[in-house]
Amino acid sequence: MAGSHHKQRLRDIKDTGFGSNSSVEGGRLINPDGSTNLRKVGIPIWERISIYHTLLRMKRAKFLIVIFTFYTSINIFFAFLYLFTGVDHLVGTDGATSFTEKFMEAFFFSSQTLTTVGYGRVSPSGMMTNFIASTESLMGILSFALVTGLIYGRFSRPRAYLLFSPNMILAPFKEGKALMLRVATYKNNHLTDVEAQITVAIHEKEHNKNVTRFYQLPLELSRINSLALSWTIVHAIGEDSPLYNLSKKEIEETKMEVIVIIKAFDDHFSNIVQQRTSYTYKQLIYGAKFLPMFERSPDAAYTLLELDRINAYEMVPMEEKVLSEA
Amino acid sequence: MAGSHHKQRLRDIKDTGFGSNSSVEGGRLINPDGSTNLRKVGIPIWERISIYHTLLRMKRAKFLIVIFTFYTSINIFFAFLYLFTGVDHLVGTDGATSFTEKFMEAFFFSSQTLTTVGYGRVSPSGMMTNFIASTESLMGILSFALVTGLIYGRFSRPRAYLLFSPNMILAPFKEGKALMLRVATYKNNHLTDVEAQITVAIHEKEHNKNVTRFYQLPLELSRINSLALSWTIVHAIGEDSPLYNLSKKEIEETKMEVIVIIKAFDDHFSNIVQQRTSYTYKQLIYGAKFLPMFERSPDAAYTLLELDRINAYEMVPMEEKVLSEA
Amino acid sequence: MAGSHHKQRLRDIKDTGFGSNSSVEGGRLINPDGSTNLRKVGIPIWERISIYHTLLRMKRAKFLIVIFTFYTSINIFFAFLYLFTGVDHLVGTDGATSFTEKFMEAFFFSSQTLTTVGYGRVSPSGMMTNFIASTESLMGILSFALVTGLIYGRFSRPRAYLLFSPNMILAPFKEGKALMLRVATYKNNHLTDVEAQITVAIHEKEHNKNVTRFYQLPLELSRINSLALSWTIVHAIGEDSPLYNLSKKEIEETKMEVIVIIKAFDDHFSNIVQQRTSYTYKQLIYGAKFLPMFERSPDAAYTLLELDRINAYEMVPMEEKVLSEA
Amino acid sequence: MAGSHHKQRLRDIKDTGFGSNSSVEGGRLINPDGSTNLRKVGIPIWERISIYHTLLRMKRAKFLIVIFTFYTSINIFFAFLYLFTGVDHLVGTDGATSFTEKFMEAFFFSSQTLTTVGYGRVSPSGMMTNFIASTESLMGILSFALVTGLIYGRFSRPRAYLLFSPNMILAPFKEGKALMLRVATYKNNHLTDVEAQITVAIHEKEHNKNVTRFYQLPLELSRINSLALSWTIVHAIGEDSPLYNLSKKEIEETKMEVIVIIKAFDDHFSNIVQQRTSYTYKQLIYGAKFLPMFERSPDAAYTLLELDRINAYEMVPMEEKVLSEA
Repeated sequence: MAGSHHKQRLRDIKDTGFGSNSSVEGGRLINPDGSTNLRKVGIPIWERISIYHTLLRMKRAKFLIVIFTFYTSINIFFAFLYLFTGVDHLVGTDGATSFTEKFMEAFFFSSQTLTTVGYGRVSPSGMMTNFIASTESLMGILSFALVTGLIYGRFSRPRAYLLFSPNMILAPFKEGKALMLRVATYKNNHLTDVEAQITVAIHEKEHNKNVTRFYQLPLELSRINSLALSWTIVHAIGEDSPLYNLSKKEIEETKMEVIVIIKAFDDHFSNIVQQRTSYTYKQLIYGAKFLPMFERSPDAAYTLLELDRINAYEMVPMEEKVLSEA
Repeated sequence: MAGSHHKQRLRDIKDTGFGSNSSVEGGRLINPDGSTNLRKVGIPIWERISIYHTLLRMKRAKFLIVIFTFYTSINIFFAFLYLFTGVDHLVGTDGATSFTEKFMEAFFFSSQTLTTVGYGRVSPSGMMTNFIASTESLMGILSFALVTGLIYGRFSRPRAYLLFSPNMILAPFKEGKALMLRVATYKNNHLTDVEAQITVAIHEKEHNKNVTRFYQLPLELSRINSLALSWTIVHAIGEDSPLYNLSKKEIEETKMEVIVIIKAFDDHFSNIVQQRTSYTYKQLIYGAKFLPMFERSPDAAYTLLELDRINAYEMVPMEEKVLSEA
Repeated sequence: MAGSHHKQRLRDIKDTGFGSNSSVEGGRLINPDGSTNLRKVGIPIWERISIYHTLLRMKRAKFLIVIFTFYTSINIFFAFLYLFTGVDHLVGTDGATSFTEKFMEAFFFSSQTLTTVGYGRVSPSGMMTNFIASTESLMGILSFALVTGLIYGRFSRPRAYLLFSPNMILAPFKEGKALMLRVATYKNNHLTDVEAQITVAIHEKEHNKNVTRFYQLPLELSRINSLALSWTIVHAIGEDSPLYNLSKKEIEETKMEVIVIIKAFDDHFSNIVQQRTSYTYKQLIYGAKFLPMFERSPDAAYTLLELDRINAYEMVPMEEKVLSEA
Repeated sequence: MAGSHHKQRLRDIKDTGFGSNSSVEGGRLINPDGSTNLRKVGIPIWERISIYHTLLRMKRAKFLIVIFTFYTSINIFFAFLYLFTGVDHLVGTDGATSFTEKFMEAFFFSSQTLTTVGYGRVSPSGMMTNFIASTESLMGILSFALVTGLIYGRFSRPRAYLLFSPNMILAPFKEGKALMLRVATYKNNHLTDVEAQITVAIHEKEHNKNVTRFYQLPLELSRINSLALSWTIVHAIGEDSPLYNLSKKEIEETKMEVIVIIKAFDDHFSNIVQQRTSYTYKQLIYGAKFLPMFERSPDAAYTLLELDRINAYEMVPMEEKVLSEA
């Protein structure tokens, strides 16, 4: 096979943070959302998981459910505390006679204390009940300090808001071929000093063992000043590429995974933002080229970026080229 | 035309994030306030717009109106909820008989719950009303957590506070000419490691098609250690300039747009700040030079920076120079 | 001694921020947790200590105790203020007759004011008591603003969450030997652009004086693109190493301290994070090699990182190698 | 004069952000606290001043006074509003008959509303009063959101906490002389990647005009890896120095100002911090050398940094050296 002979002359890289026996075949290294396909074991879960960051990256609906559940649980807990110390110490609850009524009075008194709304129709008396109420209102304030921080952290978390083309394509390029993918920002943000780094993980047989080799893919342009519209990232498949002279079938046999890291300065956040994704060989369209995704507006007053065309491509003939090269 | 022959030897740049068919003629690429003159379509608006950043960059008055409207709407919504579950469950509202009176009681009870002020003259009773009030006070706390974050985000957002001269000028410089613009900080902030980057977008005809070409303009000084007073950014129009040997009329025909990016370290925020602006050919003063905008104070005790003189210039003869060069 | 002759040709470094007469022998320069083993004197403690940062880095339990103590103290202080101005100005406390009862009423009124829960069963009357209550509720809001900031600061503080191997090992490496240590992230975070810097402090006799010399240790790989799994940091002991040709006993005699600094970009925080640690000669395992700590999952779907194996090593024969080199 | 002849061969620098006609003689460019000795005029003060940053950098006592004054003013304002709409709409204030009593009731009701403590002994009734109270509690929440942000901003503002020696000294160094100053961190913080940059502003006569020239001073070590103890920054006065061969009297005649900028990475804040200061020729000690300011602790367990010795120096003979050089 021409490809594997050639690859022996290429230097694979060791500094990817993944080892040669990590999983490529079957599983992937990086999930499409950029997280690592990895499980850490050996230390307790509460040391392994950053609760703060889990809450920070949670979907909004789930986050609200977590808060509501937390709020209800705390109230139930304190309601029982008030019941234990005697609901008669809650002045204004004389009307409550059944257990349910007493519990509801205690529960809603708890919620009025926790949120510090404190209407006062019901109020604590006696040292123990007062102490519990005092502790609960402190706890309420601390909890909501935490929630304030979480909510601020959630919306101020620097993110690149990048849209990647769902497919990467293998297109004719200059005299040869190139691997291409496309990226654009989908929010009203503006990135500058944008850098792309593409690494390919290739599944190889070495002395009858399955190993994973990593190669940095050289790019036509690995850094652009500004990303206002879209950017087609191009890896020309030359002699310095591990994909050099591989046919469509040979590429599939590598079971390759292409890891893309974009790093940029975002002036929304005045911060560096980073986004990762990965493509497997199954997401490769062989013999296609991207179609333009922006155009001048009809009145030539502004530029129109069509985000739903991020993956717009058309098929182009490729096979004969490959044959002539081989 | 001398200019266009010359330009063929210059290398235009591809890494601006704008394409060659984006809009220059008529519209502009970058608005004077630094935002991109661009519309994104193809995905729903709530995915395209970052609500947080929209609220962050909103004018103060508008921001306060948004908050007040939000506050009133929530109260109206909850007032109706209390009405539906029966205003008689709001203890202390016996005096209210007409619908308006009942609504007002419910509305103001709602506002006392949302802000957690909870005077208690009116207080909830019954499970349903208590549950709504409990949810509203939780929602109040979450909303104000959000507002706290927004307000903090608004005033802590790193900004360069740069004042650009409204015009750029074409001045005699050394043996030839130079394009100049002036910049100063207008707040009590101090920038260090200040970098300027100037790109010109030029409208050209190529094979009967209108295309936009981008050129990086080399600067006399593209980085200064510290920006305490003002900085005149100078592009000497030499052979490496796309404006080389262009007459006033030829410059106008390029319909050029000059995009300026300033990046610096601000010790207010201990952060990198960035500000953009752009000038079109209509903002160019041909044959002028900037007048000084700072001076030693009368008692020589400090330096005086006159910000209203940022655009102060005087006309200087230019034409004959251009002719002799051509 | 071969080693000390050799070391005279090496250049020690002066830019470590430690002096040659700072403490190495006996004490250490950097504690295992990365803090500096240093005391600052000569200015008052409140100028030397950053209260904010002390509260930020405090263990969680201790932090909660500090807050609870602060809350109780403030309440006790204000309770006495209310007692002094007359507990009869607290409307609703008529039932309290003994000092203890009066104090408890004042104390719990204070806590209801500080947390702004304000039930209203007890409320202030009279100018002085009202003024105190008004001041206390302002103070409550300011304190809890501070606590909100602290809590946010605590969980948003950028940290690398790095686990270092408790030991460093001296292993056979290529033709010679190498000093190795291992590092992995233990949370669900992902580091990119990871840099390691290793400095060794060596205790030497110079003209009968004990001095400390610092040497930068060159690394096989001092920067990796990404740290997803584990990273074994390797210093090959060649001629450019201050440990060149030292026997096990000679290494112990240097009483060396190895200072490790890791700096990386963390995409949790979108910030640069840094973590330090140090190893003394007592933590060196002579003649060992690290065992793998990650493997493909049984179903090859993901990679499994076993954090409890961070220090997993096995002994390997070394001595004869050393002898042949000497 | 040897010095001024020599200086003509040195290149002064233009990128300091100060111009040659800014003030040095008499006044200074940078104040000892690092702020710029500069006044900006020509635009309204509210555009020139960043209120947020003014509040952020204010001394703590002054900041608390501002908040207390703001709180009292708002309460007085709303107290008058409640008086105008009729204090009889404040239920529970029937006992107040005199104007003072009515005002106090209104004032304290206002404070209970603003802080959302809302005891409820006094509560609003009627649409107008309810509307005002509702607006006030919203305003209270917004104000305290602002205060929360300010307090967080105040203590989380990245600062270098550097102590500079009050004097700079001119000391014998190697074969010649050197200008030295000393710096240390005075809090429990630790700086890494510390860079120093020293610029000298020299007052010169040029064609009978007073001009200010700026020269970058080359340093023996302009960057250190880590600043744990103290750092003596050394400018050796060689041929590349504008102070070369100047006598004590000639140095005084330059009326020089030495501007020092330190930039570092602080792991407290995980951020870059920067601190500036400046020395005038009046702060120069001619013929002195710094004494050590740290030592091993008596039990050799740690290092002791004596911050009150930051300016400790002893006089050393210098004059003859200068003469022999001239």
